[in-house]
Amino acid sequence: MSIIDGRITGFTVYPLAFSDPPLLNAAGVHEPLALRTVVRLEAGDVVAWGEGRGDALPPDVVPALEAELLGLDVFATSRIESVVDGVLRRLRPDLGAQARLMTFAPIEVAALDAQGKLLGRPVSELLGGALRDRVDYSAYLFFKWAGHIGADDDEWGAALDPDGIVAQAERMIDRYGFRSIKLKAGALHPDVEVASLLALAEAFPGLPRRIDPNGAWTHDTALDVARRLDGVLEYLEDPVLGIDGMSRVHAETGLPLATNMCVVETEHILPAVRSDAVQILLSDHHYWGGLRRTKELAAICEATGMGVSMHSNSHLGISLAAMTHVAAAIPNLAYACDTHYPWNRADDVVPDGGIEIVDGAVTVPTGPGLGVEVDPGRVEELHERFVRSGRGARNDGDYMRRGDPAFTDALPRY
Amino acid sequence: MSIIDGRITGFTVYPLAFSDPPLLNAAGVHEPLALRTVVRLEAGDVVAWGEGRGDALPPDVVPALEAELLGLDVFATSRIESVVDGVLRRLRPDLGAQARLMTFAPIEVAALDAQGKLLGRPVSELLGGALRDRVDYSAYLFFKWAGHIGADDDEWGAALDPDGIVAQAERMIDRYGFRSIKLKAGALHPDVEVASLLALAEAFPGLPRRIDPNGAWTHDTALDVARRLDGVLEYLEDPVLGIDGMSRVHAETGLPLATNMCVVETEHILPAVRSDAVQILLSDHHYWGGLRRTKELAAICEATGMGVSMHSNSHLGISLAAMTHVAAAIPNLAYACDTHYPWNRADDVVPDGGIEIVDGAVTVPTGPGLGVEVDPGRVEELHERFVRSGRGARNDGDYMRRGDPAFTDALPRY
Repeated sequence: MSIIDGRITGFTVYPLAFSDPPLLNAAGVHEPLALRTVVRLEAGDVVAWGEGRGDALPPDVVPALEAELLGLDVFATSRIESVVDGVLRRLRPDLGAQARLMTFAPIEVAALDAQGKLLGRPVSELLGGALRDRVDYSAYLFFKWAGHIGADDDEWGAALDPDGIVAQAERMIDRYGFRSIKLKAGALHPDVEVASLLALAEAFPGLPRRIDPNGAWTHDTALDVARRLDGVLEYLEDPVLGIDGMSRVHAETGLPLATNMCVVETEHILPAVRSDAVQILLSDHHYWGGLRRTKELAAICEATGMGVSMHSNSHLGISLAAMTHVAAAIPNLAYACDTHYPWNRADDVVPDGGIEIVDGAVTVPTGPGLGVEVDPGRVEELHERFVRSGRGARNDGDYMRRGDPAFTDALPRY
Repeated sequence: MSIIDGRITGFTVYPLAFSDPPLLNAAGVHEPLALRTVVRLEAGDVVAWGEGRGDALPPDVVPALEAELLGLDVFATSRIESVVDGVLRRLRPDLGAQARLMTFAPIEVAALDAQGKLLGRPVSELLGGALRDRVDYSAYLFFKWAGHIGADDDEWGAALDPDGIVAQAERMIDRYGFRSIKLKAGALHPDVEVASLLALAEAFPGLPRRIDPNGAWTHDTALDVARRLDGVLEYLEDPVLGIDGMSRVHAETGLPLATNMCVVETEHILPAVRSDAVQILLSDHHYWGGLRRTKELAAICEATGMGVSMHSNSHLGISLAAMTHVAAAIPNLAYACDTHYPWNRADDVVPDGGIEIVDGAVTVPTGPGLGVEVDPGRVEELHERFVRSGRGARNDGDYMRRGDPAFTDALPRY
């Protein structure tokens, strides 16, 4: 057999902007455009793609990254990681370890996509192989405005009370078949959020339910909510900020707590384990440093007695495919993963309306690499939209203040 | 590109026996023949090899394993793991988790060798790529008899005092260039072992040194040895048995402690971390479930604040290659790995005297798969030697009693 040439011959970074509904959360409300970064790698005779957070690849480091990545082998992802790490330490010493892993992540995903395409094998097989054919996701419900400021109502309409949330859940479950529910909270008064969760429990009695206020609650509010939702929650996500706060809430309620906020780097794991602050770690390959490190993170969770599920931000189909491959390869994944995809898929760079979610699950792609087609024209289009928008970093708070000038960023809020 | 067929079409297990010198340790003395298991996989148009412990593949489960493995894809190693696990749970419910991972390990190594051969890529690249071109090993010194019972002296001769150990070290370092020393202890009186280590420190002042009595010492002896070796040890390995005992020794001496005895399964990690019993975990892919799980174990060590190095038993070149690939891919490997290879390479199934160790290191193979040739004729020969020997499990204690009828297995001994 011939040796496959895996040297990187092209590296292009596309900051993208795409439509996002006005979803409420503890930080404010989603702006009309969500931001992501797409990486395009060329290696041998293949073109490969990775998707990262909007702030994953600071534009000022891209030329230096390109200069160092060209010629590296897509099979040497650890080497690529150390090169990315080195460039960022040199040019952006202000960035921490997590920011450096965030930059590496979409490059690693693209490198694995390239490996798979060069080998004719799906990414899941580069991670030890899929242990399931389909990966379950949860219906990710949000309180939301009817439409963006100055715009017409969107297709989902308002959800600002229990009836609105139940209607949103009905529509989303009807369309995608989700068998698990996550309610983003921390946006309205806890009474409304508790009532909404109880209404969901009544409307969908068989489905596991979670609520996530992103640390918007005080210790006492968290205890009160935990008491009122006793018996209807699969887990409670980030009721309060910080490892110490989470540890106290768990000790006093006994409820399993999940986080994507207080354990987001390797160095947070041991303090969390020692204080029993987190029972379910929400992995996210976008900031844990890619798919291989996410699989390692699952092994760390197994070793330290934590469950593992998956966190999401607004994202497109490249990330949904990547999340699905790694989720399929994680033995101890025991919960439906989070995804914002239903809110964003209309704008996807994956053609034909993006990736299907059926019966609440995504079928693990079996084609080479990530196994999804990416439309380069759509990538260019969303990149132009980003450029035209003049947008910088995401700022849900400032956008919220256009509707509610009294809104403050400080947490806890309730 | 064409899709590569990775289905397993052949699975053969060879128990092997090969020459081993009379090396002393806490369990007794190495018998004239060491036992290993070699797995041969056929997949597509390649033949692949894995090596495991002598007790890795109980003969009674081999036919059932073969029936279930044939037709599986060598790229689906997690699926192979769960199939192996299932067969053992059904047929050998007496075996624990570690024994099941021990069975899987050589099969995983062979599957990765097959993947690499099918793809034309070295195994290190299936693990994220080599982070170093060479992997350092330590000079593994043993107190030993001059020769086996009833046989002539072997080429190494006796080492039963400080002079003998220094002479052994000189010879081994002269031949292989090792830049790090490990002394197997727990065999003679601690006074002799301490004196030997101090003699090594004098003879090789620049080299890091470790001593490993395999839990043969009482708490007080461990403290006394630690005091007498203060300042001359890189780390102290398994001075006493058990997580609690290790924790006490570390608390009272402050010395970094390593283990391959009290943390040998995932469930041991958290207790060890909570009691700060282990500062360096000695990984071993043969009982941690293969190369991918060993890389995950290194990530667990990073997350839980433990250093990572590598343990060895008597082994052949297939294992040395596998150890070298995974060691090269582990970012946080900060110590020279252990290997018995100098004691066993003359009998290797890798032709031409086996794999070279130069300047104390093995060059990471860059050819497809494990990157080492295996001589099928040598495999057959060592298998016949195993069959003719009539040997069952390793039993260093019974062999020791042939020389010293008063020898007892109970530890601690000193």
